Amino acid sequence: MKPVGFVRSPFRDTSEIPKGCGAKHDADGVLEILPELEEGLTDVEGFSHLFVIWVFDRSEHVALLGTPPSDDRPHGVFATRSPYRPNPIGLTVVQLLRREGHRLHVRGLDMLDGTPILDVKPYLSGVPQESVRRGWLEEAERKRGGAPSPPGS
Amino acid sequence: MKPVGFVRSPFRDTSEIPKGCGAKHDADGVLEILPELEEGLTDVEGFSHLFVIWVFDRSEHVALLGTPPSDDRPHGVFATRSPYRPNPIGLTVVQLLRREGHRLHVRGLDMLDGTPILDVKPYLSGVPQESVRRGWLEEAERKRGGAPSPPGS
Repeated sequence: MKPVGFVRSPFRDTSEIPKGCGAKHDADGVLEILPELEEGLTDVEGFSHLFVIWVFDRSEHVALLGTPPSDDRPHGVFATRSPYRPNPIGLTVVQLLRREGHRLHVRGLDMLDGTPILDVKPYLSGVPQESVRRGWLEEAERKRGGAPSPPGS
Repeated sequence: MKPVGFVRSPFRDTSEIPKGCGAKHDADGVLEILPELEEGLTDVEGFSHLFVIWVFDRSEHVALLGTPPSDDRPHGVFATRSPYRPNPIGLTVVQLLRREGHRLHVRGLDMLDGTPILDVKPYLSGVPQESVRRGWLEEAERKRGGAPSPPGS
């Protein structure tokens, strides 16, 4: 696995990234794909949203159980978006604003500046929201009276 | 990157996996997570859907441009779900039917039996379908009169 590009985002430190119940991810930035891979972006501009698969490159350990910012109880790492994963892979849905050659201008970033990108895929369709159950997160939101988390969070 | 588990699916050959416009992914199977990682699945059963990040382990080359089964024109690899990616990573949304210890029984598989799993994440929310534009795929569907692709395809 080698980076296909890097994220240019306004976030220099994880403390700057909105987290927890009702956190809004609307930061703008750029997915800088390697120039030699630009041909792979052909026709990507027709899609409104993209999946970005990336590396938590500044995450230094693994924790199978952890207490996320949105709750006061621990949950399994595969039931959360914790960075302390067996494979430090992140997944974010972004809105594609425009393409300039090998640069994709996007909205909805929640990654640090300089984050390595492993893959970009078109977002084709979602699960109807009425079919989605969100386990512990729904309970935590009810307890706190927080708004539901936004798409991609 | 090491597998956190393996897919048990009915598909032994890529020719058996439904592809192209209107393909339905409703195959049942199991995500067998490594027993030593079972603690990481704590509370996952509360979620109706999961993202599965996996490896196209039988994909042998990279093609920056390719013609997908749903169209007769070539598109960039980052605008398709082609297996011939710079990093051979796949992403599938599955419905979680039930958990049995370190085994997740799921519906909606489109991976070959034995596929290595890199990560499992909870599906929290999608982009409202009315906001999603799907570029070349919409055009191809219109031309063929096919049904829109189902979630996760």
